[in-house]
Formats: sequence, structure tokens, C-alpha cells
Amino acid sequence: MQTGQAKPLLRALAGEALSPPPWWLMRQAGRYLPEYREVRARARDFVELCLTPELAAELTLQPIRRYGMHGAILFSDILMLPYALGQKLAFHEGEGPVLERIEDPAAVGKLDARRIASALDPVFETARRVRGGLDPRTTLIGFAGAPWTVATYMVEGGGSRDFRRVKSWAYRDPQGFDALIDLLADATIEYLTGQIGAGVEVVQLFDSWAGTLPEPAFVRWVIEPTRRIVAALKVRFAGCPIIGFPRGAGMLHERYLRDTGVDGIGIDTAVPPGYAHRTLQPLGTVQGNLDPVLLLVGGAALEEAVRGLRQMLGAGPYIFNLGHGVLPETPAENVQALARLLSEPVLAQPMDA
Amino acid sequence: MQTGQAKPLLRALAGEALSPPPWWLMRQAGRYLPEYREVRARARDFVELCLTPELAAELTLQPIRRYGMHGAILFSDILMLPYALGQKLAFHEGEGPVLERIEDPAAVGKLDARRIASALDPVFETARRVRGGLDPRTTLIGFAGAPWTVATYMVEGGGSRDFRRVKSWAYRDPQGFDALIDLLADATIEYLTGQIGAGVEVVQLFDSWAGTLPEPAFVRWVIEPTRRIVAALKVRFAGCPIIGFPRGAGMLHERYLRDTGVDGIGIDTAVPPGYAHRTLQPLGTVQGNLDPVLLLVGGAALEEAVRGLRQMLGAGPYIFNLGHGVLPETPAENVQALARLLSEPVLAQPMDA
Repeated sequence: MQTGQAKPLLRALAGEALSPPPWWLMRQAGRYLPEYREVRARARDFVELCLTPELAAELTLQPIRRYGMHGAILFSDILMLPYALGQKLAFHEGEGPVLERIEDPAAVGKLDARRIASALDPVFETARRVRGGLDPRTTLIGFAGAPWTVATYMVEGGGSRDFRRVKSWAYRDPQGFDALIDLLADATIEYLTGQIGAGVEVVQLFDSWAGTLPEPAFVRWVIEPTRRIVAALKVRFAGCPIIGFPRGAGMLHERYLRDTGVDGIGIDTAVPPGYAHRTLQPLGTVQGNLDPVLLLVGGAALEEAVRGLRQMLGAGPYIFNLGHGVLPETPAENVQALARLLSEPVLAQPMDA
Repeated sequence: MQTGQAKPLLRALAGEALSPPPWWLMRQAGRYLPEYREVRARARDFVELCLTPELAAELTLQPIRRYGMHGAILFSDILMLPYALGQKLAFHEGEGPVLERIEDPAAVGKLDARRIASALDPVFETARRVRGGLDPRTTLIGFAGAPWTVATYMVEGGGSRDFRRVKSWAYRDPQGFDALIDLLADATIEYLTGQIGAGVEVVQLFDSWAGTLPEPAFVRWVIEPTRRIVAALKVRFAGCPIIGFPRGAGMLHERYLRDTGVDGIGIDTAVPPGYAHRTLQPLGTVQGNLDPVLLLVGGAALEEAVRGLRQMLGAGPYIFNLGHGVLPETPAENVQALARLLSEPVLAQPMDA
């Protein structure tokens, strides 16, 4: 399908098969870059870093300058949304985020969705600054956490191994939990509306913990709110493609892609490329899924894996990415090697096994 | 299929659809039981607990006395294998296991597979004691970690978020890493041979981290060693069924079940029961997959979920279980409620959607 779009990432999201494929990397701005660490040191903490447009814009652009990815993703964090709603948030070095815990519908009632536009205006300002400085082939990507994943952090008070608190609430009082999910969906619509208004051209919804839910809960708290967010954004901005990333969704990727209305789907490292080729590409654009450890290792293993992905997925609409974020220990030169590998010609030869 | 086997768990593993289904729970012996905590206090540490047959046998039987599960699983830990091979191991309360790290083929060469039989004889003695005391409808289940999962702990030195060390080794030096996997497969064959010789009637291979690998690595380090273990055990003990539990395997469950030769497959919470009914039950017995948090929550949510699983999976060969281990915070009375729910008549009505 030819769409007349000039930017490779937008063409892929409109359904075109491109060779070489457009690419970007989750966490492409980050600690593996020396110039990141220098800018990071100029903010008191991580929240300040995300909410200082000058610094966040610089961090967004750093990997593009080095490697020329086709997508520049706003430097921010999915927890800026609960922060903007009024939830206390801190990032402790090496330990992950810590949030004041939300434990019941009464606590949900205290969250103030009207604060989104003002509290997150620095993110919109970052978008405006970056968009102005991008070359014409690079696409500005905005993002938010999907409601289920953001809710896990809000209720657990941080990361979790068993999601005991958030699932207990959801299973015990599904209507009460719906109120939290609904509020997050509404806030996410406002947040992404602000981002798109500020120049973002594609948005990605990160649902990092989608794969922890049994099917009925996945339908109710992953698919439904995502569908609602996508529908609202499509009414306001028909031309802005949306990528969903339901990490760990396994056999539910197909249903997610069919039922939510997203244009593209991010796939994690465990998804077999052959399945993505046969089952997902006929329904939408596929994005992924190199193991981040292969980027860390580099060399022949990286070459072989990148070639394999391009062979299997390159005949359909495809955006190259990792299956998870860049690891902080990744050598910067391996990303350079990846950029070179991605620019080489590779014949797409999907095997319909 | 009628097999003449008297024990429900063995009949289900031979392909029979039983109503009510046989059941047991991963981590059914554990901290949620007051009588567990009492016995736990009698050992200096967790390793001693696993290797003291009197205590381990008592812990194995505790949940059976209370709830009458159809399967009694040996009280032990998958890390007893590296411990027996000579790797230092400690369990720190609330922090998970800590192992001396194995970093290269030279370190693999120092592991002594000949120690398995003697170092793990206490586990075999536990099996002999338990088997003697089981009523005729209860099946004794032995287990081991699958080589990939055991290797992750051995190389990372404990649990991991990104499996950076173990995957780096595997990707950089696949032949060298094969040597570790091969040694673990051989040791696992010896270990399970000892368990079966001591009276174990079914074995389960726990591959808790199977779902972290991309497809080619999954084939090489999950499917291949599992296939080899299953083939060796089937030669020695044709009548001992084997259950594989490749947690997080997503779309690769089907290939795992086809290619490894296991009789049954454990499915985690994220696997849709409809997929298991349509795709896995025609190939083998399915075991799973109630969310452990539903057992913690109890009440109407538990009832509805248990009924749903039995409706979808009860028409084929099925063993009821959780999708992951019992959570320590689970109220003991909820397990009693589950036992009651499982004994009620439910009409299997799989929907072939």
C-alpha cells in the first residue's frame, strides 16, 4: 500500500512493507549513552529530569544524533501520569519507583484528573521543542502507560512480583477497580491529546504487565480501556497512528490487535516471529522483538538474529525494535553496528511453516 | 480412554477426562499453613529442611491431610540439584536464593555430577517415607527444575529481572553454554531416576523462565534438553508420566508439547483456557491455571473462575492446579473452599469459539 507519507515510520504504520524497515528502540535514550549520564546529572531527581523541557528534549534527541533512528520517543516515564494526578512519586537509584499506595475507591476519588493539562505541560513543551528540531524523516513518538499497567504501580506502590494487592482489589471489587481504570483511561486520553496537540505524530501505549492477567481480566482491564482510549483519540486525531504493547500477552496478542483498534502492535522477545508474520501482520503493523541481551552481546549472534527478524517480518508492515528496553550495560558501539545491519539489504523470506 | 489405573491423577495423565478433575496445587506445602511454620522452625535453614527426610516427609503430607489433594508433591526445591553438584547455596529469609555464580565452561567442569545420588539420597528417602503413608487414591509427584531455569539461577547467582548474564553467555558462546545445559540434563535424569526408584509416580519439570527466551533459544535450551530428559526417563520407566511446565511459553506451548514428549503440560495464568482446550488437550493432558490471587481472594470470584476452568477444560484430560504457586498470604480456609468447589458436579461445556 502506498500512502504518500514521507516518513518511513508513518508509512510502515499505514501498512507499507519497507526495506530496510524503519526502526527505533525502547529506552533508546538512557544510561548506556555517556552523554545521557552527563545531562542526567543536571537534574536533582528523575521526576525533575522528565519535567524540565530543556533536558528532556536534549535526551530525546541524543540517540537520533548518534544513530539516526526513524522514531524519536519523548523522554519521560509512564508514572508521570499518576504524579500529575496527585500521587506522591520518587525514584530511588537502582531500586525502581516508589509511590504512595492507592488502596480503595476513596483514594481514587482524591486523584484530580483536572491537573493533567497543567502538571504535564512540561511534557508538551518538550514535544514542541523536539518536533521543531527533527529532520524530515524522523517521527516524534509520544507515549503513556496503559491503565492496567499504571494501576499496578499505583496500587502496589511500585514494582511487584505477584501483583497481589492490585489483583486482590480487582477480583474482590471489580466495579470499584473499574473506577480507577476508567479514571486512568480518561486521564490518558487527555494526556495523549496534549502530546499530539504539541506535535507528537505517533503514540505508544505501554502495557508492560498485560501478561499477568487471566483472559477475562485481560479483556476487562487491558483490552477494554485500550479500545476506549484508541476510539477517543481516533475521533480527535484520525491521522495519528497508535501502537499498543501488551507485553507477555501470549495467545491474546491476536485478540488485542483485533479488538482494540490499534494500528500497530509491539511484540516482546518471546513472541515467535513466524506467528507474528502469519497472525498479526495481516491485522496490523508489527513492531519488535530483538532480545535486548543480543544488543548487549553484539557480534555474530546479533547479526544472525537481526537478519532472521527481517527475513521473517520484512515482507509485511514492520518496524524494527527490541522486545524490551535497551539494557544500561549495552555498549554504545553495538547500537551503531545495529544501525549498519539495519541499513543493509535483506531479502524478506517468510517461512509459512 | 479407560486405563484401569485407580488413581485419578494417573488416569488423567493417561488421557481420561474425569469429573470432578483430580487436583493439586503448586506450593501446596508452605507458609500459608500454620503447621508448616511449626515444622519449618525445626530446621536451621531451608536447605537443611529439604534434606531432612523426617521434616520434608511431614511437610509433603500436611496439605494432603487437610485438603485431600490427589497429588502429593515432594517437599524440596529446584536448587537442590546445583547444591548437589557442589555449588554453594543459601536462602535468605524474604530475599530468595543466593548461589555462588557459575560464569564459564571452566566452572562447569568443576561441578561433580557423580555426587547426585549420594547428596540427594535424603530426597529419595523422603519419597520412600511419603509413599508408604499415602492413601491409595493419592499420587506421589516428584520434580526437578528444567535445565534452562536451573541454569539461570546458577549463572545469575539467584533470581534475575533481565537474565543478562545467563543469556549473554548463551548467545556469545552457545557451544560452551550447551555444556552446562547438557550436564544439567544428565544430572536431572539421574536425579529423577532416583526419585522414581524411591516411589515417585509422576514427575514435573519446572521451567519457570522458559518464557524469557526468543524462539531459536527456546528450541535449543528449553525443548531440546526437556526432550532428552523425557526420552531417557521413558526408556527406564515407561509407565511414569511426565508433566512439563514451560511458564510464559505463550505461542510456543503447542510446539513444546508436540516436541518434548511430555504427557502433560502445566499452563500459567495467562494462557486462555479456550486455547488450551482447542490446541493442547488434543495433544496431552492440561494442568492449571487458576490465578493464585483468586485463591487468596476467595468468595464469588474464586467460585466463578473455578467453574469457568472446569467448564472449558473438563471435557478433556485435565488436572486442576494454579497457574503459579500458592501465595504465602493465602487464607487456609480458601483452600478448603476450593476443595469443596472441586468436588461439586460441573457440566463441561467447552466453547469452540
